[in-house]
Amino acid sequence: MRTLLLTPGPLTTTDEVRAAMNRDWGSRDEEFVTMSERVRARLASLYGYERSHVAVPVQGSGTFGVEAALQTTVPRDAHLLVAINGAYGRRIVTIAERYGRRVSKIDVGDEAALDPAAIAHALANDPSITDVAVVYVETTCGVLNPLAEIASVVHRAGKRLFVDAMSGFGSLPLAGLQFTTLVASSNKGLESAPGLAFALIDRAHLERCERNATSLALDLFAQWRGFERDGQWRFTPPVQIVAALDKALDLLEREGGQAARQKRYETNCATLIAGLQQLGYASLLDPAIQAPIIVTVRAPTEAWYEFNLFYDTLGIEGVRIYPGKTTAAASFRVGCIGAVDARDMQRAVDAIGRTTNRLRQSHAATA
Amino acid sequence: MRTLLLTPGPLTTTDEVRAAMNRDWGSRDEEFVTMSERVRARLASLYGYERSHVAVPVQGSGTFGVEAALQTTVPRDAHLLVAINGAYGRRIVTIAERYGRRVSKIDVGDEAALDPAAIAHALANDPSITDVAVVYVETTCGVLNPLAEIASVVHRAGKRLFVDAMSGFGSLPLAGLQFTTLVASSNKGLESAPGLAFALIDRAHLERCERNATSLALDLFAQWRGFERDGQWRFTPPVQIVAALDKALDLLEREGGQAARQKRYETNCATLIAGLQQLGYASLLDPAIQAPIIVTVRAPTEAWYEFNLFYDTLGIEGVRIYPGKTTAAASFRVGCIGAVDARDMQRAVDAIGRTTNRLRQSHAATA
Repeated sequence: MRTLLLTPGPLTTTDEVRAAMNRDWGSRDEEFVTMSERVRARLASLYGYERSHVAVPVQGSGTFGVEAALQTTVPRDAHLLVAINGAYGRRIVTIAERYGRRVSKIDVGDEAALDPAAIAHALANDPSITDVAVVYVETTCGVLNPLAEIASVVHRAGKRLFVDAMSGFGSLPLAGLQFTTLVASSNKGLESAPGLAFALIDRAHLERCERNATSLALDLFAQWRGFERDGQWRFTPPVQIVAALDKALDLLEREGGQAARQKRYETNCATLIAGLQQLGYASLLDPAIQAPIIVTVRAPTEAWYEFNLFYDTLGIEGVRIYPGKTTAAASFRVGCIGAVDARDMQRAVDAIGRTTNRLRQSHAATA
Repeated sequence: MRTLLLTPGPLTTTDEVRAAMNRDWGSRDEEFVTMSERVRARLASLYGYERSHVAVPVQGSGTFGVEAALQTTVPRDAHLLVAINGAYGRRIVTIAERYGRRVSKIDVGDEAALDPAAIAHALANDPSITDVAVVYVETTCGVLNPLAEIASVVHRAGKRLFVDAMSGFGSLPLAGLQFTTLVASSNKGLESAPGLAFALIDRAHLERCERNATSLALDLFAQWRGFERDGQWRFTPPVQIVAALDKALDLLEREGGQAARQKRYETNCATLIAGLQQLGYASLLDPAIQAPIIVTVRAPTEAWYEFNLFYDTLGIEGVRIYPGKTTAAASFRVGCIGAVDARDMQRAVDAIGRTTNRLRQSHAATA
């Protein structure tokens, strides 16, 4: 029985992606250098940014990428407005403040989408703001933010836009946007193994970012210059993880690209929500702002429910969910992404149904 | 024909280590949490530091670990003396200076070992020094530094010691030393896949390191607290790389531990140096300070030699070497570490001999 990782990541990967890791590469071998360059080129061109932006990968998780991109591309004298609707927006604030950047915030709460008009208003009210940061899919509750509208507002105001596109890259629309920096990772919508993040950065802006970063390892200007110089990583690359991502990009293409993957995730999400509703579970969000990425489900208020017990019992069926992250309501989360399809989601729904009955009955028997 | 990666890393790994990556794990699954805890415990106890020190892994390459450990464990008001004999010592200076630490240096040049007496002298001369940093095996030329003597000197002076033990951990002696912080990575002497670094940090000192780090992702105090809280990584772990390291630690044990691995590397190194001598190649270092990790070989001064051509031609034979890194002499480097034995080293020597003859003859024919 295949385990389904219905989480924000690490996710279920395909056998092909994992098989791609079964080899050694020297970091300066032509084959590996070519593979790294191919991956960089594919990441930049996936949404058509190969002329305006460069793709700069960095070792580590998505947060490593966010931190690297923030300190490199948001200058030291910037005034950064962070529009927040969850933990990942708050994390951007934490990182920027640790590096001494001036930060202002708009926080709409975890269950609402960001409001482009409110961002426009904040920019009009404070001309000292130079940069705006937003999260595309806030997986804290699973909200899809109106990125195209936000990008227009920020562009019209003449400010730079920083996008944490972690969970949407590869599966949701991202073409034709005006942004300075966009960060994502190998192991969400790209369905590869974790261990690698990357940023798409406006080339003309990046040219001016030489002295922004405090960190050496997370300096994406230096990382970029390293690739441009000789195609090599400045520091030992996770060669197997790069190979897995290269294969995962093949599979994305074979599936039909981002639109096809979006359709699969939407079907996954609809199957999940409909199935949970039949079981008496309600999703937390207004369907209009629900991203087809991860669903926050209101936790049962009955006495039989305790998350860890629920998680472990469901785990016996090979289905891994995730705890809730919002403080707004008791909840758990179920992801719709990774190498899973509607049949897998139905299997998860069935397992949740059985687990619910089992725990309810067992509680009733001992009560 | 198996490719031999005779480099400072990524290295040749075993089939078993790579096979361990052929699975998915959820990051909060009990099985994965248990595996992470097991890896942490084994790293701390490999040299007997499980009572005094804690092992804190971090995503990324070895340099990510060095940077994370430096900013976390060398306090903001520290005065750090870096004893240097190569690029990795210089890198410690670069990192510490970027984070605003006060730094002093002793540099003995790339072809000499560090001198404990000189370090003692520097500490006696400047009581404001609080911390000393050294590299155990400086792979710039391949020098084995007298770490035990240095640790004694630093301990007697009442200072903290920071050790970059990247290339020696798992294969060279490291037991019974007085140090505050020691950094290494998954893919050198431990023979696992790259993508993970770790630090052993004196527990009592780490307790006082809460506000040292500027970085969020590379804050090893917060990383440690995360593990202590619930056994989970703060940010998405490279699950397959953790699994590979767990398997690699099995294999180290099966081989007979550090002493057995050291013996294999010493035999590898002796086979390599003797074979190269027969071919007319000389190693750069005094044998007394040569670590059995990587050998710097004087480049031929004849007109046929050009590193990239030599590298590529040798690559056809499935043998990957590395360019020289020291500016002291034209050189190339050949590693002795990874999942390779004396027969592999002899195969490399034979390939170097054939490549030398081939290039020399081809040059003579066209000259």
